[in-house]
Amino acid sequence: MKKDTILSGMRPTGRLHLGHLSVLENWRRFQERYNCYYMVANWHALTTAFDDPGLTVEATKEMVLDWLMVGIDPEQSTLFVQSEVKEHAELDLLLSLITPLSWLERCPTYKDQVQQFKEQGKDITTHGFLGYPLLMATDIIIYKATLVPVGEDQLPHLEFCREVVRRFNHLYKKEVFPEPQPYLAEVSMIPGLDGRKMSKSYGNEIPLFSNPKEIKSKVQTMVTDPDRIHVHDPGHPEICTVSNFHKVFNTAAIEELEEGCKGGKIGCVPCKKRLVKALIDHLTPYWERRQELEKDPDYVWDVLNEGKRRARWKARQTMQEVRAAMGFEIPGST
Amino acid sequence: MKKDTILSGMRPTGRLHLGHLSVLENWRRFQERYNCYYMVANWHALTTAFDDPGLTVEATKEMVLDWLMVGIDPEQSTLFVQSEVKEHAELDLLLSLITPLSWLERCPTYKDQVQQFKEQGKDITTHGFLGYPLLMATDIIIYKATLVPVGEDQLPHLEFCREVVRRFNHLYKKEVFPEPQPYLAEVSMIPGLDGRKMSKSYGNEIPLFSNPKEIKSKVQTMVTDPDRIHVHDPGHPEICTVSNFHKVFNTAAIEELEEGCKGGKIGCVPCKKRLVKALIDHLTPYWERRQELEKDPDYVWDVLNEGKRRARWKARQTMQEVRAAMGFEIPGST
Repeated sequence: MKKDTILSGMRPTGRLHLGHLSVLENWRRFQERYNCYYMVANWHALTTAFDDPGLTVEATKEMVLDWLMVGIDPEQSTLFVQSEVKEHAELDLLLSLITPLSWLERCPTYKDQVQQFKEQGKDITTHGFLGYPLLMATDIIIYKATLVPVGEDQLPHLEFCREVVRRFNHLYKKEVFPEPQPYLAEVSMIPGLDGRKMSKSYGNEIPLFSNPKEIKSKVQTMVTDPDRIHVHDPGHPEICTVSNFHKVFNTAAIEELEEGCKGGKIGCVPCKKRLVKALIDHLTPYWERRQELEKDPDYVWDVLNEGKRRARWKARQTMQEVRAAMGFEIPGST
Repeated sequence: MKKDTILSGMRPTGRLHLGHLSVLENWRRFQERYNCYYMVANWHALTTAFDDPGLTVEATKEMVLDWLMVGIDPEQSTLFVQSEVKEHAELDLLLSLITPLSWLERCPTYKDQVQQFKEQGKDITTHGFLGYPLLMATDIIIYKATLVPVGEDQLPHLEFCREVVRRFNHLYKKEVFPEPQPYLAEVSMIPGLDGRKMSKSYGNEIPLFSNPKEIKSKVQTMVTDPDRIHVHDPGHPEICTVSNFHKVFNTAAIEELEEGCKGGKIGCVPCKKRLVKALIDHLTPYWERRQELEKDPDYVWDVLNEGKRRARWKARQTMQEVRAAMGFEIPGST
């Protein structure tokens, strides 16, 4: 049986935070079983931040170093930058010429975001923003990916992609593209320091690449149960950020910790201390790897240039099939 | 002073007809003064005929042979096929990410065509169809064209292109693109055999590459003044298709012919004979050239592959500037 192919990507946002870790650890696990393409989605970043030039290069470097330190292995997987594989743009254009406008207009995420833009007084609904699900579909099918790790909220985009695949194969009477299936990977929800979603824009994040001192000071600012003043007060771990972290980074001890909190036996200070230790234990091997990687300032670019070579090779093969199916072959062209 | 650069193109419709001649003769004249790019707009063809695969290659060959026979000179001008220069797709995507949807939705030609599709019961309003003016803008500015031959009806598209240029240069704080100017070239309006616009879809055309026999039989079917039964009846050249042809192909004799018609002195039969002669005189050198060109079946492809090389060279230069302005330069990338 042929190995499945996975495509996944992230916008270049610079250094990642703990909220990204479980996605990356999934990526690392996929490598053992699948043929993996991991993409820096820098064209995607322009769908909502086109007026922020220069965002890409430094942010790409920092993000990919974080991928590598977690164990994304450029020998096993293809790591590449979207804008470096021009074939994505060609396929995106061709698909945009066969995709009814109404399919895009009725994407639920599109309608929601337009509403949000309006509320924020922003006028950034561009032609490319409307076409965003199409660019995503392109990224997937140009590698003939068969599995796409998605959250529930991304299922409509994947269904859209499958519709586009069926339309192409039907119009040009050839099974050029497989219909990709969703892979509903479990992703641990790590809250930010204040209990909201972890996000740079909230300033509530813990960087993935960090050091013991920073981890300690970040954990100290975590919001705990506000009603628990004294150690002996019974705590409510279900509303405590520290406890939510323990669920992810200290699974073996979680029962003991929750009981201790509810029973007024373990105070917030020792509870935080144990979290600091768990985080440092979990992250130290990553930090050490990153420090090694940083010694060669060209290494990330070497990885991405080699990845581009491989990604292009596959994308070009697909595009030859696409052009043949659509009747775009000019004799003698190279 | 630097020579102006012109970009113009035609969708690959196969053999051209007399209705295209004056555009081509303008193209030929431009070569003497300008740096000319002439493009087979095969991606454009998909905006309204995406379900017609295979339309491109044979139709491209026939059309470009017609260009060449009229004197479009591949030594002076760059003749190329749009789909062969992938950089168009890359720039189109980037522009689509910065172009407000509302700019495209309010294009008058878009609204008209959507209305037409509705009346014809067609549902072919695609994302790429909405983005058609953007693809046109891309084709122009990727060569930094400064002049674009347009008819009055195309002026809104060119104005749109200029808006996109201003937006790009403003957002990325660099004058990467010049604002192209319209070149309102005079185009002779040649009616079809039945007096309507000449068009393959009406079946009223005279092929550009033809022969004396076909010209004669086509001219015989031309619609003349229906009230003129006998030679001595006074004719009305203003409603006579033959007379409209004389205006273009027999300018020196037009006064004499119109007087003769109005005065009942020249009958429709000799009048048509004179048109046959004028057409054959005008077209014979083209036909002879085409017969020469057809002897080498690879010649058209050689021309287009060399044109692609030159077009790409320029397009790549421009894209390097675009990527630098937008912050898309990956170190070590080739």
